[in-house]
Amino acid sequence: MPEENIDILINAGWLIPVIPRNTVLRNCSIAIDHGKIIAVLPSAEAEQRYSAQQCYHLPNSLLIPGLINAHAHAAMSLLRGYADDQSLHTWLNESIWPAESRWVSEEFVFDGAEIAIAEMLLGGTTCFSDMYFFPDQTARAARSTGIKCQLAFPILEFPSAWARNADEYIHKGLALRDEYRDDTRISIAFGPHAPYTVNDPALQKIATLAGELDAAIHIHLHESAGEVTQSIAEYGLRPIERLQQLGLLTPLTQCVHMTQLVDSDIALLAESGSHVIHCPESNLKLGSGFCPIEPLQKAGINIALGTDGAASNNDLNLLGEARTAALIAKGIAGNPELLPAHEALELATINGARALGIDDVTGSIEVGKAADLVAIDLNNIASQPLYNAFSQLLYTDSASHVSHTWVDGKLLVKDGQLLNLDQAELIHKAQIWQQKIQAEC
Amino acid sequence: MPEENIDILINAGWLIPVIPRNTVLRNCSIAIDHGKIIAVLPSAEAEQRYSAQQCYHLPNSLLIPGLINAHAHAAMSLLRGYADDQSLHTWLNESIWPAESRWVSEEFVFDGAEIAIAEMLLGGTTCFSDMYFFPDQTARAARSTGIKCQLAFPILEFPSAWARNADEYIHKGLALRDEYRDDTRISIAFGPHAPYTVNDPALQKIATLAGELDAAIHIHLHESAGEVTQSIAEYGLRPIERLQQLGLLTPLTQCVHMTQLVDSDIALLAESGSHVIHCPESNLKLGSGFCPIEPLQKAGINIALGTDGAASNNDLNLLGEARTAALIAKGIAGNPELLPAHEALELATINGARALGIDDVTGSIEVGKAADLVAIDLNNIASQPLYNAFSQLLYTDSASHVSHTWVDGKLLVKDGQLLNLDQAELIHKAQIWQQKIQAEC
Repeated sequence: MPEENIDILINAGWLIPVIPRNTVLRNCSIAIDHGKIIAVLPSAEAEQRYSAQQCYHLPNSLLIPGLINAHAHAAMSLLRGYADDQSLHTWLNESIWPAESRWVSEEFVFDGAEIAIAEMLLGGTTCFSDMYFFPDQTARAARSTGIKCQLAFPILEFPSAWARNADEYIHKGLALRDEYRDDTRISIAFGPHAPYTVNDPALQKIATLAGELDAAIHIHLHESAGEVTQSIAEYGLRPIERLQQLGLLTPLTQCVHMTQLVDSDIALLAESGSHVIHCPESNLKLGSGFCPIEPLQKAGINIALGTDGAASNNDLNLLGEARTAALIAKGIAGNPELLPAHEALELATINGARALGIDDVTGSIEVGKAADLVAIDLNNIASQPLYNAFSQLLYTDSASHVSHTWVDGKLLVKDGQLLNLDQAELIHKAQIWQQKIQAEC
Repeated sequence: MPEENIDILINAGWLIPVIPRNTVLRNCSIAIDHGKIIAVLPSAEAEQRYSAQQCYHLPNSLLIPGLINAHAHAAMSLLRGYADDQSLHTWLNESIWPAESRWVSEEFVFDGAEIAIAEMLLGGTTCFSDMYFFPDQTARAARSTGIKCQLAFPILEFPSAWARNADEYIHKGLALRDEYRDDTRISIAFGPHAPYTVNDPALQKIATLAGELDAAIHIHLHESAGEVTQSIAEYGLRPIERLQQLGLLTPLTQCVHMTQLVDSDIALLAESGSHVIHCPESNLKLGSGFCPIEPLQKAGINIALGTDGAASNNDLNLLGEARTAALIAKGIAGNPELLPAHEALELATINGARALGIDDVTGSIEVGKAADLVAIDLNNIASQPLYNAFSQLLYTDSASHVSHTWVDGKLLVKDGQLLNLDQAELIHKAQIWQQKIQAEC
């Protein structure tokens, strides 16, 4: 006779908790109450011990922690495939920036964010970090869908539909931070766009404010060689040296891309405790360069993983991104032992949580953490035979077999279908934007 | 009133014929009779002109030519995930070769090939080139499933469960070639494993026989740096120079991997008219190196695409492989304009047909060619909005949305389900092999 009444019990054939490392559990259960994991135990024992309001029997599925997409521009889903196979200069100057200046609005951001969130939930992402205009609209979409996120409000010297200058970006961002200060799923960070789009006074102000507020900073950094050359010419400093001098490199700083690194850059990262957000597919597709995984790991730097926006990737499939990360780490280093499957999964889970400062809450399946969980159905030909659950998860196309996604114990995807978003309506919205945008191409 | 009675009419929202290049047709139909494409025309016109026995209305789908996987070891699906994240030496010597010597048999090859064929059909592959022991069993599996293939019978100096020495491999292979001489879907090629596993006399014999029989030769070549160094030490020649001297480089030769190339190697390829089979994911995962797409293209060499076996890849998703090919071509060259989406699709279709010498039959949607076709359902969030069908096909996870696969006009996959293979039974077979193999690990 079960003794304990709880909200949810999930029984699964395979379970990868991420912590402890490189571990696969068989026939295990997760007991959940009030949105939190209260026990991870053998299913036979769980059935004896718990009486759950909702029970999920998933004997052919693999449970993993919810994935954390540590760098996205969610609203850019509306520009997916709009401009591909172009040089970075053409892509930005002739395609993306003109399209953004014409189209970005509250509606664009809300609709694009909803579409992105739907895609992320369907692919097992339960938390994302975003940087885009009208972060209030992305926040609204995130709140209504139940996903977790960190919204880094953008800060630039030049005007957009959202703000006119660095001061106004900061002012609006802080107001948003205030609005969401009690939200447990949404946090607001500083998002200085890049060292080449924000001047020293604004960067200094951001460093001061972020320090006072204990807030995270999320910044595109060392994405391409040109940016480094330009910084040396203009400031006599590499971009990361400039940030360090301005006080922007702290354990709350998330450095996105980081493809152009020399030893002294890596030393600065290590000393500061800042995080690297690796976006391998976007970097490949735009020909930006390679984030050097091996030396970063050796220096003890935390590396998380991001998809970047769908205008450059073109999907928000974080398991696919982890696979690409593992493959190119091995390929570039000529070392097949580098970034094994279990470490690639860490990039997409616990390391993302560390980067976002929420590893006490999510990123692994551990007692006391939020029930941010994903079930992957292994009952398909491409997942068989199953010698190694990590290999099958990382090196096959497993994102297309995500069946269930929970955030804080709330089921948001069931049997591969969104529960509180209407997929047909979202597709229709995307098509209407496409028609409008194409009509003016 | 339609005038012409035909077998099949397929109406689709989008159609990429591959020839002509870089073309997307909207609301078009393919008329099929006796397994062949007899017309490609606007759907409105097709409805007037044809009365079809079977009609498919796919307004939300994209039709493409069947994909051609130009290098696989189908039976190795049974070793998917068996040994990952290992150095090439450990992987081969301590994992794969011992497992093969213990397990490879007629049953292993038939079951493994069936599982691989199922996965390939579900992912839109309608033709594959294979090299493995017991090619008779792979042929039997291919014939029963209806897929097309080229089977390169293996030739090695050392014994396997299939044959004892080079002469016996060749003898058995020629007998198989004889058996399948009238088969329109299955062709048999010479498969000398690699320059380092076959001696000069056997290679010379293969060159002579292939020349007499007008048969294709399929060989692993310049896969890793070690193989090149070893050849120079042993023969004073780079592997490809040795093949050229022995008469093995012809327009019927398929050179697989080709990651270690200098200018003179590329010149030899160009002069001979031999084909390159690029396997980017396997090369990345094993840290072998990068096939240099840009100089090969500039030299006018035909480049096709292969997944390699599931023991190294670990899936047989050719659209995913084309995406990886496009991404790493751009990334390595630092040039986002290199290998645009439409060229990556050519690698996976018409170039594969050219490499296999069947481009008069398949590889594009053209009148007179076989109805080897794939429908991809674009009615999903990750495919929206749809500015560019090539981008959505190549840069998103589109293989998971393959709904229909036809070979010679015969429907083999419908609504994402195999029509003449039992998926549950195949999964069960894979699990039985796994249990047997794991019991002896």
